[in-house]
Amino acid sequence: MSATTFMAREIAEIPDAASLLVAGEAARIGATLRARSFPFVVVCGRGSSGHAGVHLRYLIETRLSLPVSAAAPSVVTGYDRPPNVAGALFIVVSQSGRSPDLVAATEAARAGGALTLALVNDPDSPAARASDLVLPILAGPEHAVAATKTVTNSAIAGAALVSAWAGDSELERGLAALPERLRQALALDWSAWSADLAGAPAAFVTGRGHGLGPLREIALKLAETLRLPALGYSAAELRHGPRASVSVATPVLALRQADPLAEGVDALVRDLNRDGMRVHACGGPLGTLPWLGDGHPACDPIAMLVPAYRAIEAEARRRGLDPDKPAGLTKVTETL
Amino acid sequence: MSATTFMAREIAEIPDAASLLVAGEAARIGATLRARSFPFVVVCGRGSSGHAGVHLRYLIETRLSLPVSAAAPSVVTGYDRPPNVAGALFIVVSQSGRSPDLVAATEAARAGGALTLALVNDPDSPAARASDLVLPILAGPEHAVAATKTVTNSAIAGAALVSAWAGDSELERGLAALPERLRQALALDWSAWSADLAGAPAAFVTGRGHGLGPLREIALKLAETLRLPALGYSAAELRHGPRASVSVATPVLALRQADPLAEGVDALVRDLNRDGMRVHACGGPLGTLPWLGDGHPACDPIAMLVPAYRAIEAEARRRGLDPDKPAGLTKVTETL
Repeated sequence: MSATTFMAREIAEIPDAASLLVAGEAARIGATLRARSFPFVVVCGRGSSGHAGVHLRYLIETRLSLPVSAAAPSVVTGYDRPPNVAGALFIVVSQSGRSPDLVAATEAARAGGALTLALVNDPDSPAARASDLVLPILAGPEHAVAATKTVTNSAIAGAALVSAWAGDSELERGLAALPERLRQALALDWSAWSADLAGAPAAFVTGRGHGLGPLREIALKLAETLRLPALGYSAAELRHGPRASVSVATPVLALRQADPLAEGVDALVRDLNRDGMRVHACGGPLGTLPWLGDGHPACDPIAMLVPAYRAIEAEARRRGLDPDKPAGLTKVTETL
Repeated sequence: MSATTFMAREIAEIPDAASLLVAGEAARIGATLRARSFPFVVVCGRGSSGHAGVHLRYLIETRLSLPVSAAAPSVVTGYDRPPNVAGALFIVVSQSGRSPDLVAATEAARAGGALTLALVNDPDSPAARASDLVLPILAGPEHAVAATKTVTNSAIAGAALVSAWAGDSELERGLAALPERLRQALALDWSAWSADLAGAPAAFVTGRGHGLGPLREIALKLAETLRLPALGYSAAELRHGPRASVSVATPVLALRQADPLAEGVDALVRDLNRDGMRVHACGGPLGTLPWLGDGHPACDPIAMLVPAYRAIEAEARRRGLDPDKPAGLTKVTETL
């Protein structure tokens, strides 16, 4: 393990990677989509790309009023029954564009009459070649197994697409401000949270709406980089069944963006504080972690990934784990 | 806490509750749906009912080739932007039929031109009243906070609906055999698994396809009844990122039904065994837990809930926890 890990370098590249994107292809593809109509959208992705897909789902539903189905690739690759997606928009999100089940699902969607769009880092990948439209996320080479800048750029590319597609000037302004906020976010020190994870048997991450994809992404990074069982739940779900499994031993990270769902996150944080749980909150009046103050509610949770990634990477090194080599994982996700 | 808990009594009622269902309304409503066509289906439910919804999703996609969107109620209740579901089928799954956000989402879907269908235990509930069609799940009164027989009956009602809707005679035969298999399943002793959970900091449950809803349900019951952080992952997801957080300290339960996805579950079980993990598997050549042998692949994972529920309930009592009163939970899920 080198003094500086690939993961650390790639987190530091997040603001520059985001800057390259803003002036990208999203506007052109957004205009193409705006000229058509779709009964619904299917979003297909696994792991970190799946989390970018969850972020995209909330934007498509709230900005375009189109229902979104998160594809279950096994329905195509295992059960061999591709759903009827004629006339729909099928979006595959994949860093490498090489996961065989995602490629198969994309090919099946195209053969079934969907318009297919790939959000990929490699525009020459099989998933891109199976797609009618390709939106390159332009994150540059990523060497760490733990994806970071490809995740933020996938989410930003999706948001830029929706901004153009829906003609949402507020979201456009939020995205224009994002590279600078990502740069500022690099300086935020969340070690109060990550240090609290030492010795914890498990950890929780919560939030809602635009925060759901990012909070699941943070939980996954805890699992793969710190080898910590980590549970990502919407605040609405966590309040109920899973709440019983939160204890003083299991730190909770809460992401809170300034939108109509903030109240629900605040209420959960208050309840957990009252019950003596170890809560680390970002955003809002109950925030305990350093934060930039409220920006655009769909962009802020993306920016919250930056201090979370940095804290996880540093905590992994502190424990003698190699953030670049999570146990038993490889860069391209192969599932069939 | 009484010597016999509500939870234990209600688990024991699962076979009888299932028997009442088979001759129910599902065929009539299935025929109604068959006479219409839908571009897609939205399934809306939280917690245990959400897991029954996941089970339903795989059946609808594989038997009817209709894409399914799992509704995000917050898009309606928080962001106030109901997706355009005109012409679609909207299915709300709710034991009580009283969760305000599910009722609001159902009302919005109906107002937006969807055909609304309620799978509910209380056919006089607000969710039922907001629906064009009501499929009562006929589970009878349920007193335990931890839902059990309402979960199996929700899943069976959904499967009976799809069987009639798709004219799937094999699924119909599987459902006809299910009450007797559920009765046999009551005798299966999974204490080798539940005893292994003692002292575990967290636990994993895995499987794929038709097993995804049931495995998530078991994880939720571990969380709410044993207060154990429990992670339910499809075998396809668990192989990748989350795998790094599985250790010899965290038992893994694997559900395996006899269908084209079985191979993937077997491969994961083999890998975990090779790495010395504590794996408890149900079904197939690698099974370690008592099981009935293969039946219908969409019905077997429902039957696997029975020994899992029984083992969790018994382990909770053994530890002095009251299975009927999980910490901080209530029977009706209220989220807005």
